[in-house]
Amino acid sequence: MKRYLCLVLALGWLAMPAWTVQAGTDSDMQSKVRQYRQANEHAIIAEFVELLSIPNVSSDRVNIRRNAEFIKRMMEKRGIATRILETRGNPIVFGELKTPGAARTLMFYIHYDGQPVDPSSWTETHPFEPALRPGKLKAGTADPRPIPFPQKGSRYNEDWRIYARGSSDDRAPVIGLLTAIDALRSAGISLRSNIKFIMEGEEEAGSTNLFPFLRENTDLLSCDVLFMCDGPAYYSGDPTLFFGVRGITSCEITVYGPNASLHSGHYGNWAPNPAVRLAHLLASMRGTDGRVMIQGWYDTAVPLNESEIAALKAVPSFEDLIKENYGFSGPEDHWQSLMEAIQNPALNCNGLHSGWVGDQQRTIIPPTATAALDIRLVKGNDPAHMVKLVVEHVRAQGYHVVDRDPDQATRMRYPLIARVRRTEGGYPAFRTPMDLPVAREAIAALERHSDRQPVILPSLGGSLPIYMFGDLLKVPIIGLPIANHDNNQHQPDENLRIGHLWTGIETYAAILMLGQQR
Amino acid sequence: MKRYLCLVLALGWLAMPAWTVQAGTDSDMQSKVRQYRQANEHAIIAEFVELLSIPNVSSDRVNIRRNAEFIKRMMEKRGIATRILETRGNPIVFGELKTPGAARTLMFYIHYDGQPVDPSSWTETHPFEPALRPGKLKAGTADPRPIPFPQKGSRYNEDWRIYARGSSDDRAPVIGLLTAIDALRSAGISLRSNIKFIMEGEEEAGSTNLFPFLRENTDLLSCDVLFMCDGPAYYSGDPTLFFGVRGITSCEITVYGPNASLHSGHYGNWAPNPAVRLAHLLASMRGTDGRVMIQGWYDTAVPLNESEIAALKAVPSFEDLIKENYGFSGPEDHWQSLMEAIQNPALNCNGLHSGWVGDQQRTIIPPTATAALDIRLVKGNDPAHMVKLVVEHVRAQGYHVVDRDPDQATRMRYPLIARVRRTEGGYPAFRTPMDLPVAREAIAALERHSDRQPVILPSLGGSLPIYMFGDLLKVPIIGLPIANHDNNQHQPDENLRIGHLWTGIETYAAILMLGQQR
Repeated sequence: MKRYLCLVLALGWLAMPAWTVQAGTDSDMQSKVRQYRQANEHAIIAEFVELLSIPNVSSDRVNIRRNAEFIKRMMEKRGIATRILETRGNPIVFGELKTPGAARTLMFYIHYDGQPVDPSSWTETHPFEPALRPGKLKAGTADPRPIPFPQKGSRYNEDWRIYARGSSDDRAPVIGLLTAIDALRSAGISLRSNIKFIMEGEEEAGSTNLFPFLRENTDLLSCDVLFMCDGPAYYSGDPTLFFGVRGITSCEITVYGPNASLHSGHYGNWAPNPAVRLAHLLASMRGTDGRVMIQGWYDTAVPLNESEIAALKAVPSFEDLIKENYGFSGPEDHWQSLMEAIQNPALNCNGLHSGWVGDQQRTIIPPTATAALDIRLVKGNDPAHMVKLVVEHVRAQGYHVVDRDPDQATRMRYPLIARVRRTEGGYPAFRTPMDLPVAREAIAALERHSDRQPVILPSLGGSLPIYMFGDLLKVPIIGLPIANHDNNQHQPDENLRIGHLWTGIETYAAILMLGQQR
Repeated sequence: MKRYLCLVLALGWLAMPAWTVQAGTDSDMQSKVRQYRQANEHAIIAEFVELLSIPNVSSDRVNIRRNAEFIKRMMEKRGIATRILETRGNPIVFGELKTPGAARTLMFYIHYDGQPVDPSSWTETHPFEPALRPGKLKAGTADPRPIPFPQKGSRYNEDWRIYARGSSDDRAPVIGLLTAIDALRSAGISLRSNIKFIMEGEEEAGSTNLFPFLRENTDLLSCDVLFMCDGPAYYSGDPTLFFGVRGITSCEITVYGPNASLHSGHYGNWAPNPAVRLAHLLASMRGTDGRVMIQGWYDTAVPLNESEIAALKAVPSFEDLIKENYGFSGPEDHWQSLMEAIQNPALNCNGLHSGWVGDQQRTIIPPTATAALDIRLVKGNDPAHMVKLVVEHVRAQGYHVVDRDPDQATRMRYPLIARVRRTEGGYPAFRTPMDLPVAREAIAALERHSDRQPVILPSLGGSLPIYMFGDLLKVPIIGLPIANHDNNQHQPDENLRIGHLWTGIETYAAILMLGQQR
């Protein structure tokens, strides 16, 4: 219960909810799950390695189906009624585990496909020949050679890592969740809810066929809560829940100078320099402290409530580690912390382009200067509205705003011309209220069943189109990530830290035990 | 005399100089030169076309020598004692025309080599098959087909243009200057000075071998004034003299953020965004009005004197034409005019680069952001000092300035890090005082011998390493350009407007007549 229950009590949420905290009855559940895992490490990893050996790049239709069939067999072995459901793209593995007398259904989302691979950029081993190493590969510092997988009966060191595409993103949850079921069953602990599994095969290709599938199968997919098993756990490695993600949209601002590169000697100081104008425009939009100076920028954001603020404050800071890892000592500091910063709508400059630099430098006044911007949205922000605020700001600086390259008449009419082009429509943020009964129960379950303090995040900083699940299924959505944060997601040398998998199994077990029977 | 003499008198420069104004004695010289040209247009252009038919790309050693030999024959035909002088690169054609009793020597610099050509980007005709067209080629508007060269006896229209590489830059002065000598001789007008000709063959390849040659041949090249016959005349097409050029140096500023591209969702608003920081830095350095806000920027510039200021004021404005041509209506306006602007040291942003834009846009915080800058120098500005002022400005904004990519210790020590790299050493400006006797005489000669008001420019905006001639030869240097400003210099479809060549011949004749006999 710890920290969070105090909050719940303080806020007076005492009416009996549909989901209740099961006080203390499973205090030894974690140790039973752990004992099972400790006794079965060899078999768990062997099954995982078999899965990871099947190539899972989204576009590789043949192997994608082999993944689906292998996972179906894994699930059937656990008595889960499993079907491979066709979409217009890669198949979905759907499973159901009914619990007699259960009043509620928990659904777990996982994706079994992975990002493309370039084997030549992986260190020593192939992305689909899983390799064990004693730690994180660091350029030039560690022996990159893999170590042998231990014999049956030998234990794994928690800091060892398995290297393979999809080892973290997102096949770790497959083995983690199914092992949690094995462990509970082996300990004689009965589930209290029905469980559904939806495993997607083209998340890394944009999930384009998932949403039509959801729309056509809302009955099949009906549930009371959806857990998104994807992404890395918090830096601390503690069990992590997140209740939201930021939305995103993006745009590009191009400022126009002369209609061709002009000689900077003949015309410099007089012909308009769009790079300088763009610099002034960007500087007017956003401080170096991260604060956005566009009028109305923060007006539509739904403020965090007290429980969300309190949860944020309790998140341990890993800022020093992040700064050290990424080599900077001067963060943007309008917000008190990284965690607070990502709860707010952001304007990020992704890139600048004008003329030439480096070896290509030419002594010219460039004809245009462009800044690529992304906007990270929080609950309450409408993507189109936020782009409109950018346009209005540019206008307020005296610019005539166009939506295509200006023609000569436009050029001669307006002294300041900028194009604002929306480069990605994007989607809104999603945030499940942390004071919903199911949210409180999930938090409490982690607190009760773990010897580690869970990390509770009102929203991640990143963006996922979770809002579509919310819109279609009309259920609370909670993120349940288990991978190590430094897993090289989407990159060569993707890996899963063994200790994170072990913690993940216990985390899943705690969440699987949510609910009460009728 | 007109405008300029008034100035001279007003300033009291009445002591007898070595060069004196020859009042009124040659009032009919212009008409005699013009009559000669009108009677010989066919022969003049025929000889020019023969020259332009010889490819003259600096790197084409064989044809470069054919140019030199052809020009030598052209000069010898005029009784000029001519030698081909070897350098470590392309040969120099050196000629001398002695005038009995002459007290002074005028030297004329021309370069006979041209920029590389890509025949496929020329319109319809080959760069070394000279073509006549009734006007300027404009995309989509005019018939691009050439017209036949007129028969002997027929006249040329002044708006016709000859298209060929080097037609303007810089073989027009070869035919122009030699024809002026023919015309004077035909009219029975005797020269008053000795004349030297130095024709270089690798100006477009950086003149790397010219300066050692000058250093080793200062006696041969001794003279009292050097006329640089290169570049376009003023927009108005009037006879033009320029007395200086800006110098140049360049640098690049890179601002550092994280050591790798970071996810803008996870870290945006908090990890430092170098693109935004660079925007603020640039905005602090330079206004959108062209004014440089770096401390000390304008302190070392030698101010224009009254005659230079007066000359500038008399230059007719072509700003509306330039704006129309280059499609902008909002020039930088800290200076009262383009002509005034280019008399001042400039800071030009040549390019920006950070992350990705356009189709390549990625939702990241880029690791670095770079601005390429050139600095245009005026008399008094030391290139290294001006770059130092930039570095000091960056420091004054709180940056730790490095000269290479920062290491981890540096990154962790300084919150703001920028690298300033000097990308081109460059060279200083050069400005011949307009109140030197020879300068006043050259101006007066053009005023006396032309029915067009000459344009007198204290300095061009562009940069040329003229200062080296000045340092080595210790003589005044005056620019004497005749080509049309829209000659497509260095580009496909280079051309010379016939009327500009005719005016050029008269301009050269007036300058050739400078001096007085002992």
